Amino acid sequence: MQFINGKESLVVDAIDGLLRSSGGAHLARLDGYPDIKVVLRTDHKPSRVAIVAGGGSGHEPAHASFVGKGLLTAAVCGEVFASPSVDAVFAAIMAVTGKGGCLVIFKNYTGDRLNFGLAVERARALGKQVEVVIVKDDIALPDIPQPRGIAGVLFVEKVAGHYAERGASLKTVAAMARQAADQVVSLGIALSSCTLPGIGREDRVPAGKAELGLGLHGEPGVDLVEFEGARATSLVLLDRLFAAAKPARSYALLVNNLGSTTALEMNLLANEVLASRHGAKVKLVLGPATLVSSLDMHGFSLSLLPLTPDFEKALLSPASALVWPKVRTHAKPKLVKLPREIKTKPDRTSRNPALSALVNRASDILIAAEDALNALDARVGDGDTGSTVAGAARHLQAALPLVPLARLDRFFAATSEALARSMGGSSGVLLAIFFSAASQSASEGASWQDSLSAGLAKMMAYGGARPGDRTMIDAIAPALEALPLGLDEAAKAARAGADATARMQSARAGRSSYVSSSYLEGVPDPGAEAVALLLEGLAAS
Amino acid sequence: MQFINGKESLVVDAIDGLLRSSGGAHLARLDGYPDIKVVLRTDHKPSRVAIVAGGGSGHEPAHASFVGKGLLTAAVCGEVFASPSVDAVFAAIMAVTGKGGCLVIFKNYTGDRLNFGLAVERARALGKQVEVVIVKDDIALPDIPQPRGIAGVLFVEKVAGHYAERGASLKTVAAMARQAADQVVSLGIALSSCTLPGIGREDRVPAGKAELGLGLHGEPGVDLVEFEGARATSLVLLDRLFAAAKPARSYALLVNNLGSTTALEMNLLANEVLASRHGAKVKLVLGPATLVSSLDMHGFSLSLLPLTPDFEKALLSPASALVWPKVRTHAKPKLVKLPREIKTKPDRTSRNPALSALVNRASDILIAAEDALNALDARVGDGDTGSTVAGAARHLQAALPLVPLARLDRFFAATSEALARSMGGSSGVLLAIFFSAASQSASEGASWQDSLSAGLAKMMAYGGARPGDRTMIDAIAPALEALPLGLDEAAKAARAGADATARMQSARAGRSSYVSSSYLEGVPDPGAEAVALLLEGLAAS
Repeated sequence: MQFINGKESLVVDAIDGLLRSSGGAHLARLDGYPDIKVVLRTDHKPSRVAIVAGGGSGHEPAHASFVGKGLLTAAVCGEVFASPSVDAVFAAIMAVTGKGGCLVIFKNYTGDRLNFGLAVERARALGKQVEVVIVKDDIALPDIPQPRGIAGVLFVEKVAGHYAERGASLKTVAAMARQAADQVVSLGIALSSCTLPGIGREDRVPAGKAELGLGLHGEPGVDLVEFEGARATSLVLLDRLFAAAKPARSYALLVNNLGSTTALEMNLLANEVLASRHGAKVKLVLGPATLVSSLDMHGFSLSLLPLTPDFEKALLSPASALVWPKVRTHAKPKLVKLPREIKTKPDRTSRNPALSALVNRASDILIAAEDALNALDARVGDGDTGSTVAGAARHLQAALPLVPLARLDRFFAATSEALARSMGGSSGVLLAIFFSAASQSASEGASWQDSLSAGLAKMMAYGGARPGDRTMIDAIAPALEALPLGLDEAAKAARAGADATARMQSARAGRSSYVSSSYLEGVPDPGAEAVALLLEGLAAS
Repeated sequence: MQFINGKESLVVDAIDGLLRSSGGAHLARLDGYPDIKVVLRTDHKPSRVAIVAGGGSGHEPAHASFVGKGLLTAAVCGEVFASPSVDAVFAAIMAVTGKGGCLVIFKNYTGDRLNFGLAVERARALGKQVEVVIVKDDIALPDIPQPRGIAGVLFVEKVAGHYAERGASLKTVAAMARQAADQVVSLGIALSSCTLPGIGREDRVPAGKAELGLGLHGEPGVDLVEFEGARATSLVLLDRLFAAAKPARSYALLVNNLGSTTALEMNLLANEVLASRHGAKVKLVLGPATLVSSLDMHGFSLSLLPLTPDFEKALLSPASALVWPKVRTHAKPKLVKLPREIKTKPDRTSRNPALSALVNRASDILIAAEDALNALDARVGDGDTGSTVAGAARHLQAALPLVPLARLDRFFAATSEALARSMGGSSGVLLAIFFSAASQSASEGASWQDSLSAGLAKMMAYGGARPGDRTMIDAIAPALEALPLGLDEAAKAARAGADATARMQSARAGRSSYVSSSYLEGVPDPGAEAVALLLEGLAAS
């Protein structure tokens, strides 16, 4: 299944979509649907060499999306994997060729050779100056007389587009493009074939294997090889490419996605290739990107062009096609030192016997509640609330000698970091947010009650829960409100809040939001219960 | 299977690949692997607002490839589909936040809210000016309290990046980004889930169905709907999006590939969306492109932002991230008239009794050879050479009264067109090329022998066959060479050439290249035999 309406109108609909979303790119098409599918620049100067390329569709963004200043003047599109007709190629050439002449570039397939060839001869017979460059970059089958053309065609198109844009003569444009075509080498590998519209995908590649040197149209690969991961695979391709390429001091490399390889894999493959033993020879990189695809084939290809100063300038010059990822230089990843704040220097500890006693007492209370809270959580969650809370309490107690206690803001900040480190899970981060925000408030001079309220507000903002949502907030919020009246009142309010959660049926946030309401009835939220137990304990002591 | 080395180093390797292929883009990473995976600009001015975004990996090119002038200052990357750690987010904020302050943008998932939230609170506690915008654009689940964030985040990032680049205050940047986040709506649909690295793909979507409103992490969709093609699917999404969006005079639309949808499908979907009844309301288009993906999910999402003059300016302003397809205006496809040469006006006919008689005689000879040539071809091909040749001869005879005969170049051109139209197959196009090139040569004043030789050269160039390759060339080439000595000599040379093909074992081009050598032994090539029979017949008459 695919996002199409039917095989018939597939290609013309896709071209129209490209044009509709191309406002400002100076593109048009010839009025010759359905047979003549030609996308062309509307800003081409007839005194300059026109660059015409094309072939079967199914290789998008090639070639229609490469029409634009500095690249192609026109692209001729056939049906999926089928050469465009003689008339279509002829129409493209006649439409864009002025006194600058025309260079026609295509990949070496029989159908393209014949249809492009006849069109070129007809245009010549009518007096047009037309040159031809045929790209045969695939080294998969080294001994065949007619190597196929694959993604390396893009280097040829860019070189041609550059010289044409600079106003070079047809002779120069063709000579430079031909030089690129003669020297570019490419090789592809895939873990799957592609899905033909209306037909489907041939499941040809067995698990654990990869097809080396398969064609752009899903033609079977030359070798079925063991797939041994991205690194080994990249090296196989690179070894063969560098063995086949003309020796040079530096190269341009195209890392091309054949279709459905993820962007994550493509970035990783770029790393393998550039970090490999061959990487140092690569000066310019095009991609990783989907440039000459094979529908949704899960594979990639590498293309290598030996660099000359001329080629380098041609590849680096700007182009304004719809799809054109700038050619970039190969760079060693630059590292920036971590900000010094990330390595927490322990704050100088400071003493505050009253606060120290309070933390100890609070921790004892929570440790004592471990089993009861676990039992409660077992009824509405995964039974570990007690252990989580008690674990954090033990950690806090142990860390107490290292905690700055004299200043409230520093104490809150240290508590936040201790909870983030030791408590884990959403509730650990939420409490860390609570104390971090409280610390900020305290540092700005807020009272400790107001600081805690500021913490609650942030916890609600990030956690997304509000009072009534059956979380610990249902105990914390009323307790903080009652706190100015004293600890006893706060404890009572927390208890009432925790008890009320037992009657709340729908949990809108927190873990109980995944539990059916019938299980929740009559059971208080373990987090809210922990808060109530803590405050009751502190009030009683 | 995927192009990775293992799950562990997947994300760091991919980030390094991005950096290695990014020379000149002013990018670096924080030196905090493996936990801290942050890509950042090296050309950020601390007086400007820093824009930090991020989330789990697996959504490439989001967000690391969006770091650059006019977009993000830093991207924080988690493992695949997992929120980055508090430390990672905190490190990113601290590394890029100067006196301009920092806007942190993330999608609304619990993990991101908590980790980004705590990191923000810590940075604030250290005195940094930090604002937060949480994106909740997914309208798949209209009634949930915490809508998810999906591809619409990109509009928010672009708006923020624009204002930051202009030097606006943190307050303004945050306010504009928040306004975009409040108004953007998105919806996705998919024909498959995605392949989790090291785990695989859950085959969840049955054939003929599509999942509407599924999440960026492959979370099941809200509805399993009948898949009724690209047009109907686009309309379902658009109807829901326009119903949910704030009314406005015009909108910006993001057409986003969720992973493995082909570029062909994406262009087609753009056409469906923009040509639909809602299309007129869309003024700006971002994509079609892979921008916020879900690994290799076969699906797409649409995001809609009601436009204000401010948003329009913000979206259209340039950005120099590694991946950023310019926002373009929605345009009606422009049509260019076909070149007048494509509609062949029949040349004025002209008479030449001798040439007319020759064509008639040649046609008779080939028609008479139909059965013999078919029989020969049946032994090495599909048995239709005789019928193909005889068919073309009958067509030529019938067309003769309409053909210009007085001028050789026009006669060759008309023959080329007649063969291209009537003969079909590779050999038809090759002969059309032969006569087209001969026509051009004749028009330049070459003799008819030289013109035919020029035709042969072009046929060889485009067809790729040379003498010895077991094709009709093995008869044509020696015949043309002998022609100055007279027709008898030419016929003898053609006969010798055709007979020699019976001893040629490997066919390097043409149809017999697909046939095993053992079948070819002793059988002459049917095309070469046709040429020999033709010349022998003409010489005898």
